[in-house]
Amino acid sequence: MPGTLLRQQIAAAASRIAPWIRHTPVLRLAPGDLGLPLALSLKLELLQYTGSFKTRGAFNHLLTLRETGSLPPAGVIAASGGNHGAAVAYAAQTLGVPAEIFVPEATPPAKLARIEACGARLVRGGASYADALAASRMRASETGAVEVHAYDHPAVLAGQGTTAREFERDAPDLTHVLVAVGGGGLIGGMAAWYAGSVGVIAVEPEACPSLHAALAAGQPVDVPAGGVAADALGARRVGAHMFPIAQACVSASVLVPDTAIRAAQRLLWERVRLVAEPGGATALAALLCGAWQPPAGARVGVLVCGSNTDPASVTA
Amino acid sequence: MPGTLLRQQIAAAASRIAPWIRHTPVLRLAPGDLGLPLALSLKLELLQYTGSFKTRGAFNHLLTLRETGSLPPAGVIAASGGNHGAAVAYAAQTLGVPAEIFVPEATPPAKLARIEACGARLVRGGASYADALAASRMRASETGAVEVHAYDHPAVLAGQGTTAREFERDAPDLTHVLVAVGGGGLIGGMAAWYAGSVGVIAVEPEACPSLHAALAAGQPVDVPAGGVAADALGARRVGAHMFPIAQACVSASVLVPDTAIRAAQRLLWERVRLVAEPGGATALAALLCGAWQPPAGARVGVLVCGSNTDPASVTA
Repeated sequence: MPGTLLRQQIAAAASRIAPWIRHTPVLRLAPGDLGLPLALSLKLELLQYTGSFKTRGAFNHLLTLRETGSLPPAGVIAASGGNHGAAVAYAAQTLGVPAEIFVPEATPPAKLARIEACGARLVRGGASYADALAASRMRASETGAVEVHAYDHPAVLAGQGTTAREFERDAPDLTHVLVAVGGGGLIGGMAAWYAGSVGVIAVEPEACPSLHAALAAGQPVDVPAGGVAADALGARRVGAHMFPIAQACVSASVLVPDTAIRAAQRLLWERVRLVAEPGGATALAALLCGAWQPPAGARVGVLVCGSNTDPASVTA
Repeated sequence: MPGTLLRQQIAAAASRIAPWIRHTPVLRLAPGDLGLPLALSLKLELLQYTGSFKTRGAFNHLLTLRETGSLPPAGVIAASGGNHGAAVAYAAQTLGVPAEIFVPEATPPAKLARIEACGARLVRGGASYADALAASRMRASETGAVEVHAYDHPAVLAGQGTTAREFERDAPDLTHVLVAVGGGGLIGGMAAWYAGSVGVIAVEPEACPSLHAALAAGQPVDVPAGGVAADALGARRVGAHMFPIAQACVSASVLVPDTAIRAAQRLLWERVRLVAEPGGATALAALLCGAWQPPAGARVGVLVCGSNTDPASVTA
């Protein structure tokens, strides 16, 4: 089982990062609340520090580097669509570590503002996350800064996996959990934690289907990375570390159109008064548009994983 | 103790309304999260059905009327700054009862939309909540509809008091709870539930200080009802039913300027990703501006009670 070691690492990560992250609450929705015939448990991870789950993985990686004496004077460097960059910038600021964050041109203002507010050096350039990653690696080779990868590193996977550990504790009755996928750090960590005890449903935009394509191909492959959630889920391919976990422990992989993502954002605002960014509403979209249909008797959880968007956008 | 009977009524209300309301979660904030040196427990009542706590009192009143066979063919009628009207319209729609809602001209679009979406007959007119109340009473005398008062009725107080019962269960460690005050239905119910076991701090805008003035005068008195939170907290005077409870069980009454309310809205968005309307951010404002200073060792809870506003307004 590829996730067994990681499950131990997730438990260790939970202890390590506990002083630095929010234990986010679960909101129980009754049947009908979102026009669906089933009850839902939403984990409000969008209320996490920096507005997304990424803070968990960032702290776990930085704290692990500190514990092992592996932080160079140049500090850390990261490439990101925005949320990971904000999380690394925040964790670095909190722990007193220098940070440089590389983002593509399309990163929205809400995310740029978060990164700059944390005092990190921000470098914009390139059309995609992959371009920003390439630029960050060139820079790292000059400065000696340690890369904090947005998803493809065991310490990041273990940090994101603590989300599932909390969710399991607060909603132990669930049979299925829906999770949005970009590069796969979150779902990799969560699926490793659940280890088959809960059905983990991977949800991706049709416009950036990195895990769906990888599962079909039997290995990570490059995909287009576009659509309304590209600033959060727009990784060109899933990580090598998460892929065997996904093969073993992700029970379904579904795609949703951008229209369903926007509808989910609007519904979360109208019915629940939550502001989710497109990537944060993607998991819910799979239920709303029927891309994933729960079996009879399912008790379903949904991770609402990010909120870094212009709040005016959820009423548009 | 004026609240003893009401405490029993709150327990009964909790059972009565349980199928119809959300159990809203508590979010624990660490010291420093909002720039304050203390931890805070936020009860996220802004995620309640219709976007405010008012849904509790509305269901309790309507269900009590139904239980006692007191619902006339004309149904129910209510006057409101907006949130109570939305709650009554929603409860009436859910229970299949006709409803008419009277609101003043200043009621914002977000609240009008909620009321109309629930199929209630909406009547706008007058400069203040008090004007809408007078108009609704004239109309009720013609139709025979039962008034569902926005705050000054035992069934409404008992319904709102269930907020404290939940908060106590989910955050039993608190020593103080801050609550915003308009007509006093919420704080009356909550203070009756806590009955002195927790310090209940009343927070009002300087521009509509109905409880503050009543406590000073020794009886409910008319006050101006203006400022940024008037559409939620703009009652001209507190209710007769809540006043003796407040005298006995509210431990402090403080006022905050509108600038502090706006700052609290912005901070809730920037640091927690919550969209609170002005009235929903008023309780927190008292901590941020120092209008109420917690004693050493205090474990403080804050009720975030409403979210019916244009989400774009929280970044302004």
